[in-house]
Amino acid sequence: MDMFPAHLLDGYRNFMRNRYSHESDRYRTLAEKGQTPQTMVIACCDSRSAPETIFDCGPGELFVVRNVANLVPPYAPDENYHGTSAALEFAVQGLKIREIVVMGHGRCGGIHAALNNDGNPLSPGDFIGKWMSMVRPAAEEVTQYKSMTPAERQRALERISIRHSINNLLTFPCVKILHEAKKLTLSGAWFDISTGELWVMDSKTGDFIRPNMAVEAPEEQG
Amino acid sequence: MDMFPAHLLDGYRNFMRNRYSHESDRYRTLAEKGQTPQTMVIACCDSRSAPETIFDCGPGELFVVRNVANLVPPYAPDENYHGTSAALEFAVQGLKIREIVVMGHGRCGGIHAALNNDGNPLSPGDFIGKWMSMVRPAAEEVTQYKSMTPAERQRALERISIRHSINNLLTFPCVKILHEAKKLTLSGAWFDISTGELWVMDSKTGDFIRPNMAVEAPEEQG
Amino acid sequence: MDMFPAHLLDGYRNFMRNRYSHESDRYRTLAEKGQTPQTMVIACCDSRSAPETIFDCGPGELFVVRNVANLVPPYAPDENYHGTSAALEFAVQGLKIREIVVMGHGRCGGIHAALNNDGNPLSPGDFIGKWMSMVRPAAEEVTQYKSMTPAERQRALERISIRHSINNLLTFPCVKILHEAKKLTLSGAWFDISTGELWVMDSKTGDFIRPNMAVEAPEEQG
Amino acid sequence: MDMFPAHLLDGYRNFMRNRYSHESDRYRTLAEKGQTPQTMVIACCDSRSAPETIFDCGPGELFVVRNVANLVPPYAPDENYHGTSAALEFAVQGLKIREIVVMGHGRCGGIHAALNNDGNPLSPGDFIGKWMSMVRPAAEEVTQYKSMTPAERQRALERISIRHSINNLLTFPCVKILHEAKKLTLSGAWFDISTGELWVMDSKTGDFIRPNMAVEAPEEQG
Repeated sequence: MDMFPAHLLDGYRNFMRNRYSHESDRYRTLAEKGQTPQTMVIACCDSRSAPETIFDCGPGELFVVRNVANLVPPYAPDENYHGTSAALEFAVQGLKIREIVVMGHGRCGGIHAALNNDGNPLSPGDFIGKWMSMVRPAAEEVTQYKSMTPAERQRALERISIRHSINNLLTFPCVKILHEAKKLTLSGAWFDISTGELWVMDSKTGDFIRPNMAVEAPEEQG
Repeated sequence: MDMFPAHLLDGYRNFMRNRYSHESDRYRTLAEKGQTPQTMVIACCDSRSAPETIFDCGPGELFVVRNVANLVPPYAPDENYHGTSAALEFAVQGLKIREIVVMGHGRCGGIHAALNNDGNPLSPGDFIGKWMSMVRPAAEEVTQYKSMTPAERQRALERISIRHSINNLLTFPCVKILHEAKKLTLSGAWFDISTGELWVMDSKTGDFIRPNMAVEAPEEQG
Repeated sequence: MDMFPAHLLDGYRNFMRNRYSHESDRYRTLAEKGQTPQTMVIACCDSRSAPETIFDCGPGELFVVRNVANLVPPYAPDENYHGTSAALEFAVQGLKIREIVVMGHGRCGGIHAALNNDGNPLSPGDFIGKWMSMVRPAAEEVTQYKSMTPAERQRALERISIRHSINNLLTFPCVKILHEAKKLTLSGAWFDISTGELWVMDSKTGDFIRPNMAVEAPEEQG
Repeated sequence: MDMFPAHLLDGYRNFMRNRYSHESDRYRTLAEKGQTPQTMVIACCDSRSAPETIFDCGPGELFVVRNVANLVPPYAPDENYHGTSAALEFAVQGLKIREIVVMGHGRCGGIHAALNNDGNPLSPGDFIGKWMSMVRPAAEEVTQYKSMTPAERQRALERISIRHSINNLLTFPCVKILHEAKKLTLSGAWFDISTGELWVMDSKTGDFIRPNMAVEAPEEQG
């Protein structure tokens, strides 16, 4: 019989003693009235990039999809299971969220796999290979950036991939219509695990810049 | 031009001032040595059920997939994109995680949609409808539980669905082999948003029970 | 000659030394003026679910019927002995009680018998079988809830049965009239022997929820 | 919508804070291992005569039936609902209890009704009248005890009725067999609400006497 991981129960105990005990009213209200998050975050499964931690968000604030390499597939209304598309539809049409953030991060294992595809899949099903094939053309191109170091190519693809996902978001009719009506914003962000830096995408140019944290920390201008 | 959500930047500022400033070494080490989480959590996108919050986990601890209703599709090695299967392969084969937890929660919108399918999809693509069709047989069965209230049927399907996902996990050869070799545990959990209660699945009977929190705080057993 | 159980005499001695010695006036007054409880509780015979213990009630507070599985039969003014109906009539018409609570509990042996009827009665009289036949249609239905575990079906029937008993209460003309005149409330409760949790029925939806204990001890909400 | 009685929730809060917090292990064990009471008590619904209070018993000790006037009907294996017989069968055949105590009490409303039957039932169903008809022959006889005061007649019938119930217990084949095999004791008790006195039946003579509490209270010899 499989035992429930003890370290998770320890953590849950902390949660109940600390966070929950201070926010029990909020949880109760969220349960009774339902969630009304204004923000959807599409993030990576990576254990080092939890959106709630990085954005210091509490219960009810972020509707979060997490998949390998924070990818958004293009609109494909066929008969297959599309987990990310289902979440997108639920968030936009059901919850009427007003902001979508695609958040990537440094040293992403999925991006690394796309760039270092040696033809040896992790398992016979090769689900990673198929999943990352969404960015294969970009990966193949970046592999040709011969004068960049491997780490530079990795970072480049991480950011190209975020822009790619934002473009794919706009292939969903509901996203496109609401975005054009200025009722929905689409943003990109990239988190540097090592330094803790957050870089956000300039939606006009596609560049990633460090946000102006000037008010509180003038020296941090990116 | 879409502005990056200001409230997220506020939250990020808090993160840097508090958590990151105390854990910068940990982040740096995690960046250099890579992530080695021992636990994968498959959770819902719902804004009220973030695994890192509920299990009070820090960076590097949880590899997290989040999709609508925390579903695991059955093994299907075809040409389609399988986000959750890709994450599973990455976690089990790549990261060698040792524990998988499927965590559902009360008042799940996806489960609600599965039980209240009125034939009117949220969008022409009907991604939610197709995604939730994974539990359609169970949903149709539970709809026949006439003597239960709607809320009871919802909770019943939330739990049935967790067991269903755990069964689907075992259709993946790599999961099955490691589980039989006792190198990988499969657990279920269900979080009650309103009360903060965590119920864990007894892997033998499939029942959900409240874990015994007695050792450290006998009076806290709700 | 049968000896009176010694452990009961020991207990009685404790009662006299402690409780009675502090409440002798109350007992004397209750004897002289008669009982005027405002609450009737219909509970199970189970040794683990005494209403006076769970509701911490003293002498004169609760008028208590206890039968197997806390059932209320439908109104049947025939020539047979109807113990529960007699108690109900006495409480409502004689004592003018203002609240009726049907209290079930987890792991109820009567409900278990109803769900696991193997055709082998406990005795030739099969009194349990006949008594539990009051919930036979519900038991047969719940037996078809194939995707639930045995423990889940048991809990489901425990709660369905409470709702069933409350509906049967309303078949008694005196109950129906007073309830409609808002002079009598009908409530359901379910006690979890293992955790000590009390769940109360929402009279509007029939759902069982944990009461908000927040006012006096917000941190005690399980 | 009917609100759950607030005073019961107050009592439950006390129970959780006091009794449950000290006995949570016992409750948990009782839930897991099931109940194994050695004693069944058949008592009255009266709010002033809770067996757990009078015998100072905790969870798991007493299997308790409560009906109006603590009556046991004779064995009648017909198609009707027999709540008390079902409880008896469950206790004797299912739980293998070893002691049955019929406990009556002073100023019993059911006995009072049997002695003062004026032909005006409490409700058209007259459930009390039919229920108490079990002791009608005795009641009619006692009504002829002209030289006794009404209070004396009441007390007389309360005790006659306990003996009557114990005789009816012996009409159940399973009770008779186990009693003759000395595997089951049958006892009577009568509680004086006003003084707190407990009188127990001498099983040989049928007399009610005060038990010898000599060790601790030599002057109380009944």
